[in-house]
Parts: sequence; structure tokens; C-alpha cells
Amino acid sequence: MYEFSIDKPPKGINKYNIYLGIMFDMVQRTGQEIHLKQYPSGIPTEEIFEVVDVNIPEPKEGEFLVKNIWMSVDPYMRGRMRSPKETKTYIDPFQLNKPLEGGCVGQVLQSKNNQFRVGDYVLGNFGWREYWLSSDSQNVMKINPKIAPLQSFLGALGMPGLTAYVGLVSIGKLNEGKDTVFVSAASGAVGSIACQIAKIKGCQVVGSAGSEEKVEWLLDDVKVDHAFNYKTSGENNLSSELKKGCPKGIDLYFDNVGGKHLEAAIDNMKTFGRIVLCGMISQYNTTTPPLGPSNLFLAVTNRIRLEGFIVRDHYDLLNEFHSSMTKWINEGKIIWKETIAEGLVNAPRAFIGLFKGENFGKMIVKVGQNTIEE
Amino acid sequence: MYEFSIDKPPKGINKYNIYLGIMFDMVQRTGQEIHLKQYPSGIPTEEIFEVVDVNIPEPKEGEFLVKNIWMSVDPYMRGRMRSPKETKTYIDPFQLNKPLEGGCVGQVLQSKNNQFRVGDYVLGNFGWREYWLSSDSQNVMKINPKIAPLQSFLGALGMPGLTAYVGLVSIGKLNEGKDTVFVSAASGAVGSIACQIAKIKGCQVVGSAGSEEKVEWLLDDVKVDHAFNYKTSGENNLSSELKKGCPKGIDLYFDNVGGKHLEAAIDNMKTFGRIVLCGMISQYNTTTPPLGPSNLFLAVTNRIRLEGFIVRDHYDLLNEFHSSMTKWINEGKIIWKETIAEGLVNAPRAFIGLFKGENFGKMIVKVGQNTIEE
Repeated sequence: MYEFSIDKPPKGINKYNIYLGIMFDMVQRTGQEIHLKQYPSGIPTEEIFEVVDVNIPEPKEGEFLVKNIWMSVDPYMRGRMRSPKETKTYIDPFQLNKPLEGGCVGQVLQSKNNQFRVGDYVLGNFGWREYWLSSDSQNVMKINPKIAPLQSFLGALGMPGLTAYVGLVSIGKLNEGKDTVFVSAASGAVGSIACQIAKIKGCQVVGSAGSEEKVEWLLDDVKVDHAFNYKTSGENNLSSELKKGCPKGIDLYFDNVGGKHLEAAIDNMKTFGRIVLCGMISQYNTTTPPLGPSNLFLAVTNRIRLEGFIVRDHYDLLNEFHSSMTKWINEGKIIWKETIAEGLVNAPRAFIGLFKGENFGKMIVKVGQNTIEE
Repeated sequence: MYEFSIDKPPKGINKYNIYLGIMFDMVQRTGQEIHLKQYPSGIPTEEIFEVVDVNIPEPKEGEFLVKNIWMSVDPYMRGRMRSPKETKTYIDPFQLNKPLEGGCVGQVLQSKNNQFRVGDYVLGNFGWREYWLSSDSQNVMKINPKIAPLQSFLGALGMPGLTAYVGLVSIGKLNEGKDTVFVSAASGAVGSIACQIAKIKGCQVVGSAGSEEKVEWLLDDVKVDHAFNYKTSGENNLSSELKKGCPKGIDLYFDNVGGKHLEAAIDNMKTFGRIVLCGMISQYNTTTPPLGPSNLFLAVTNRIRLEGFIVRDHYDLLNEFHSSMTKWINEGKIIWKETIAEGLVNAPRAFIGLFKGENFGKMIVKVGQNTIEE
């Protein structure tokens, strides 16, 4: 709630502000947000999340208020659901009994920041809630809804798309027109874009996914050269599946899965092959130390490079990525799938679904509607 | 045996040659060589080797005959003692019932090649035998015995030294004066040189070795900053040993061991750390698939690069290495240990000893004496 005195309004308050202030004094805005009650062990359950009603304060000078329309659930968030004592990571763990965080797209409802106007669409990191206040014009980005649907800024045009681009181009040093590329979790938010960028750049692409429907989509729509269902293959046959798809070996493996997928890829890497370690979803919920690849000695004999990366180290490529991706989307060269959960309260279930393969493409949550017409 | 007729000597035969030819016609030169009778399972045993007496032919036109003085036994040779069906490697497996191969230093006894003169000392890849004939002036290198003792061309000035140099500088991108470097098997032929190059380049160096004597040598003579005995620590305490030696983390891990050493290093890598995969001696004799590092996901969160290499891809650095290493040796900045086995027949035992930690520094075999005085 905004505090002021009619007699002595704070600096920057004009009559219109005062009018709004009085309005909201009368009708206090409230919203929901999702808290983490305890750190999960294994696959998270809905019980560890809590929906909390909160009052939404008025923006102070320099702040703007955003109403979320879309929010993202991503596998990496599992890494933040760990006790600060448990493991060191590149990003602070989520705090208990505070709202969770993550990518979101919303619309500015009120603004006392001259860089954001009421009605602007913005991309921020304050998902898992209906409303958020910010004064941070560095980390909140205005987005143009005419380029692509709003939610694609959480997918193909957003962090997952940039992740695919950085992984292939910057870390993987993709050789255009030459490489044979293997992408695991190939129908996922990152994987499906990685497959398509590699195809655009003239490479042979092989993908793995967890259902026949996903494999068909990869073959028929994404148009990879070979795809297989790792669930029906069985984890001990991944290496022979890869031999079928990449008879001459793999130049670049884009790893979203880890575990047996990584081991099978190492078995099939060409000399001087590169493995981009992007994620290891197979291991995020293990309660005992997972098995590492038993064949890592092949990295010596075949001079393989394995390199991990985090997309946020590579925001210098954001403009290059945006201009390429916008062009490719306009040319119809990039498609994607979305799985949409309706309503903030369903965000925990959507998040949990990521680890059960319930998403087909990008998993997103519809938090609300845009309220201000352009 | 050299074949010719006195009436019509072959091209290039002069009186001296003919005289020698007649000499050797009368006294046929014989020599010993070591064959592999069968591929080992687990740690090789002496039974799989065989000492074979062979006749040594006279050099033909373009050839030269070398008498070996020193030969090298190296862990990588275990990788060539595998059935060609078993695994693909960068180098052909040793053939059964043929002489083994490996680095050697010898002296030219006879020559019909104008690039090699009788008495020259040469470095070649025809170890495991007393004599060898070659016409290959590309892969046989003349060496200058005034630079350093002959056998050091199999160690500090040879392949192990170059391996240390390439691993640190070219693969590991050592940051002079800044990095904290961990070297496993740090008293070994490669490890001890890696430690010293890193020290020369102003880095903090931590080493692991398999006995108190080796640890003392590392601390007192090699002058690393911290060293520990991995056998007395126990394999589950390697990570905490590294925390002691590298409280701020490791920038560059030079891995000669693999297995639990690699896992412990991954636990302790700094953000953007680099792991040079040079060898994995802990795994060369395993008969079941070894366990891979269970914590490889840290390579994602901490953006770690792991990269395997083989020294022979980097012979372009040989001149740069030789000039640096010769200078450092002259300045007394590089020391090394040798474990010498006497006599070719003891080469199998020396080789097997590598996997039991019986070598302290470079393991070499004295095959014979130089016979031609300079």
C-alpha cells in the first residue's frame, strides 16, 4: 500500500498518482504466489509447494508493477530446490517460504519508471506469482508481441532458444554443413530448437525422445535425419541405436540428459568430437549418487572435449541470437511445441511433469490475461 | 644377411661396406626381441611375454641398423595390448607373436642412409628389441647426447615431457602466475614434469602420489606446494585432501589416473576450471567397466571443460618444447627420477611394475651399451 499525506505529497506524486493512490487505498490489490515449503528429496511432489495470497503494494518512485501472463517451468529449477548446505551451485538455492523465481512474460499495469509504460510487455525472472514490482530496468526486457506469440519469449525466442544457440555455436563450435549432431531430449524446449538450428546450418541431426509421438514429430515436422524412442530401446541399447543413426560417428553431442545417454554418446563420438553438457535431467532427482559414464577413457583415446555451460554467461550473444531466430521464425524455419498448464495454481504440477516427460516441447503456465489493450 | 656378389657389388657399396659385409657374412648378427604371446586380461603377467632370438639382417640401400641402449615402458602401451576386435583406439593394437613397440634410444651401428652416420644416437619407436633396421628418417630423430643423459630423451626431454607440456599449455591453457594446478600421479614420468612446468610458470601446484617417499620427494625436491599419499588417504577422502591443498578450488587438473581421482577433482574445480584428460592408469587393467565420476553434473553448473589428448597430435610443439625444456634443464629447474631395469629380458617385469606403482619417476630399461666411441 502506498503511503503519503495529502498535505505533503512525496516528490514526484502528481494529482493523477494521488487519485490512483486513493483508489488502491480503497481497493487493495491482492495476488497469489507460489512458495516452496520444504526442499524435495527425489522427484518433487505437490505437497512441498504452497499457494499464498499476498497484498500487492503500489509502485514507488522508479518502480513498475507487472501482471504476469505466462510463466516458465524449467528443469534447471530443480537445481535451485536444494538446501544451501547440500551443494554449491552457480545460483543461490530457492529460499523456503518465499516466492519461487523463473522466467515470465507480463504486462506493465502501473509505472513510476520512465523506461516502462503502462501496457508494455516485459520479460523478467519473477514467475511463480501473479504480480511483481521491479525497478530493475537492466534485467527486465521489453518485448515486442508482433514478432511472435508472447509465450515464445519463454521458449524458442527466450532462454531455451538461446541455450540451444549458445550450446551449438559457442560451446559446440558447430561446423556448418559438416557435423553429425546428436541431441537428447530432442523434442524438448531446448532440444527441438537445437535440432532445428543444426539442420538450418546444414548438419546431419539425430534425436532421442521419450515417446512414439515425439519421435514422429521429430521426423515429420522438425525433420531430423534419424530419431529414436529411448524408452522402448532400453537404456542398454542406446549405443547401438546411435550406431544406426550415426554410422560414421557423432561430431557434436548436445547433452540434455546425462547418464546412459552420455555414456552411449561417448561410445559413438568421432575423434576430436565435442560434447556440450547442457543439462542432465536423468540425474536431477536421484537420491543416491548417479553412475558416471564408465567409458570416459575414450575421451582420451578419441580426444573428446566435454564442456558444461550455463546460458546466462553468454548474454553477449543475445542480440545475435534474437536477430537470427526472428529471421528463422519469419521464414518458417523454426517450429515448436508447447504444453500449457492453465492457472498459476497448476504451476507445481506442470513443473513436476517435466521429470515425467509430460511436456511435449516447452512447458509453460498461463498465469493470466493481458488487461490493457494496445 | 646382406646379399651381394663380389663381382658386381650393388650400388653404393664401397670397399668398407664389402669388408663389413664379409665380416657379418661370417659372423651372423643375432639379437633378442620381446613378443606378446596373448592379450592380457587385467594386469599383464610375465607369461604373456616371450623373449625371441632373431637374426639381424644387414642394412639394405637406404637403411641403417641401430643397437638399442635404452627403451621405454609406458602405461599407454597397455592400451595396445588389446584384441583388435575389442575396442577402437587411436593406434593399432600390438600384434601377437611380433615384437612389441615403444620409445627407444640407440646408436647407429651400420648405415646405408646418408642422413644417419655410424655412431649417431637416435630416438625411435622400436623398443622391446636389441637391434632394429629402419629407412624412416621421418620418424627416427637424431639426438645430441651433450644436452642431457641419453635416457632423458625417453623422459623429461622425450614423449612424457612433451605430454606434460602439451597438456598444460595447449590443452589446459595454463594461466601463468594465476592457476592452482592439481596433478595426479605427480611423481611419475609425466606428472613430475607437469608439476615443475606449472611451478616454473608461477602456479600453485598440488600433487598426489602413492607412497610417503614419493610425497616427500614432491615436497622437498620438486617443490610442489602441497602433496598427499592417496593410498593412505583412502579413495573416499581424496576430495577432502584436495580441499586442504586447494582451499579456493582447482583451476586446472592434469589427470593421469581417472576414477576416484577424477571424481574428487570435479568436486573441487573452480568455475570455468579445465580438466586435462591425459591418462587413466587406474582403469587400464579393469576387467569390468569402471565407475565413471558420479558428479559430472558439476561440469554443467561450474562450466567445467574436460578434454582428452594424445601427444602425437601435437608434434608441431616439439621444437618449442625442446628449446624450453633444454633451457630449463640447463638452468637446473627440472629434475626427474628414474627407475632402471637392467637388461631387455626384464622389460616385461618393468612394464608390469608400472601398474603396481613400482616405478619412481620414469621407468626405463637398459637394453645395452653404446659400442662406438665418439
